[in-house]
Order: sequence, then structure tokens, then C-alpha cells
Amino acid sequence: MSADSSTFISPSDLLAHWQGHRRLTRRVIDAFPEDKLFTFSIGGMRPFGALALEFLSMATPMVRGVVSGEWTGSASRDPLPKAEILRLWDESTSEIDALWVQIPASRFAETLTAFGQYKDVLHNLILYVIDNEIHHRGQGYVYLRALGIEPPPFYERA
Amino acid sequence: MSADSSTFISPSDLLAHWQGHRRLTRRVIDAFPEDKLFTFSIGGMRPFGALALEFLSMATPMVRGVVSGEWTGSASRDPLPKAEILRLWDESTSEIDALWVQIPASRFAETLTAFGQYKDVLHNLILYVIDNEIHHRGQGYVYLRALGIEPPPFYERA
Repeated sequence: MSADSSTFISPSDLLAHWQGHRRLTRRVIDAFPEDKLFTFSIGGMRPFGALALEFLSMATPMVRGVVSGEWTGSASRDPLPKAEILRLWDESTSEIDALWVQIPASRFAETLTAFGQYKDVLHNLILYVIDNEIHHRGQGYVYLRALGIEPPPFYERA
Repeated sequence: MSADSSTFISPSDLLAHWQGHRRLTRRVIDAFPEDKLFTFSIGGMRPFGALALEFLSMATPMVRGVVSGEWTGSASRDPLPKAEILRLWDESTSEIDALWVQIPASRFAETLTAFGQYKDVLHNLILYVIDNEIHHRGQGYVYLRALGIEPPPFYERA
């Protein structure tokens, strides 16, 4: 537990912030041409489709794990059609909303072990999921620019 | 003001999280060869040195603005030696620590206008500064990989 009980941001405002980022990531996925999503890369890095599947394997599974104690996430990074990734994305959006409100605020300062191996304070585990998405989405912006495609504006989250 | 007074993360834990990201960004700056920092780019994007100067122009100036009401940030993106950027980075690290503790927790849920133009709740304004750094640092990872340089591990923040 943290010794400091004052608030930088509330759980509901953090969820709104996260879902704003997820709306932007959805637009970045959608901006990729279908035939580039699992083929285009720079410097030997993973293609953006594989990164999008990684985001999906972390977001809902993290929140579900916290609520249920069951830690499961798909390890498959096999190519999927863009429409199917976007469908899974929207499904995940609803699942996160439904699960988030089941987490008592006191738990965010508790230490736990996620996915049987990542031990940290819950707020850090959740920020890691969000930050990992921002980090790799920045990589996606470079891929899009290198493909001659204008990425969606970073500041637009609606 | 937010209607929800419960806590996802405290101000002191958020500062620790931010400074962890800033330590990683410092390592990414340091990983660039001196002659690539302001010259190398992909897809017409800005070189990483210019992005590092942007980070510096946002971080301390945001926190100083909140504390003092004075909104100033350097607009210059003129090339500097790497050692000078790292010196400014370390200076900024100390300044952020010293200023952060002067912000009463109640202010993070208040709406204000930063730099005379960005109106939002303070926690969102600060998260924007952090997220912008993560986003563009992800771009720096691609630049390093394209240069054949292994970037520092994303998960290492110590």
C-alpha cells in the first residue's frame, strides 16, 4: 500500500483517459492498409498487426485477472483480417468498461502478481498496459509515415 | 472538479512513475550517436533531438506554470550537443521534483489553461506531457533500430 492516500486521478477518470487512448489506437489500426498490417516493418521490429494483438492480449485480460483472479491472454499473433481485429477491439472496450467498475478503489494501491509473473502495485500494472500501447502506437505512427500515410492526430481522443 | 474523489494513484506515486519514464527517455537520448540526434529521421518526421527538446519545453514548464502561474517554455529546437541536452534533462529532473511537492493534491482535479491555450483538468494536462514523451520516444525506438542500435529495454525504469 502507498503511504499517500491523496489523489492524482480517480479510477473513473483514469478509465476515461485509457479509453481515449484506445479510441486513438483503433484509428491507427484502421489507418493501415490491409496488406501492410502484418507485413510492413522497419529495423526488424514487429508489424503493427502483431502489436495490436499484443494490446488486446494485455488490456481486458489484465482487468479481468484483477476482478476474477483468472489470468488468461491469447498468445497468438497470427494474422487476422483488419475488420476482425477492430471487432475484437470494440468487444474489449465494452469488457473493460464492465469489469473496471467492479474493482474497489482500495485495490489500485495493492501489490499483486499479474499473469503469474508480473508483481507490482496494481496502478503500475495498469499504467504499464496503457504505456505499452502508447509506446508501440508511436512505432505505428512511423510505419504509417514511412508508408506515406498521414496518421490520426495524437491529441484527438474523442 | 471530478465528482469521484477515490484514488487510482496518488500524486507522489504518479511523480515516481513519471520520473521512471524520464530515466528511460534519458537513456534513449544517450543511445543516439551524436551525429544522428538532429539529422536522422524516417518518413519526414522530426529527428529525435528535436523531440527531446520538445519534452524539455513541456515538462518543467508545465509544472512550473501550475505552481507559479507563469507559463514559459523554450520554443527553440536548434541542435545542441548531446551532453548539453542530458545536462538540461538532469536539471529538469530536479526542478520537477522540487516543484511537484508544492502542488496541493486538490489542484489535480481542477480545470486550468496551460500555456495560455490548453484548457483541461490538470491531471489530463500532466498525463498529456507524459504520454507525448512515451509516444515520441516510441518513434525514437524505431529510429535506433533502423540505425542498427539496440534501444534500452522499455520495462527498465530504475
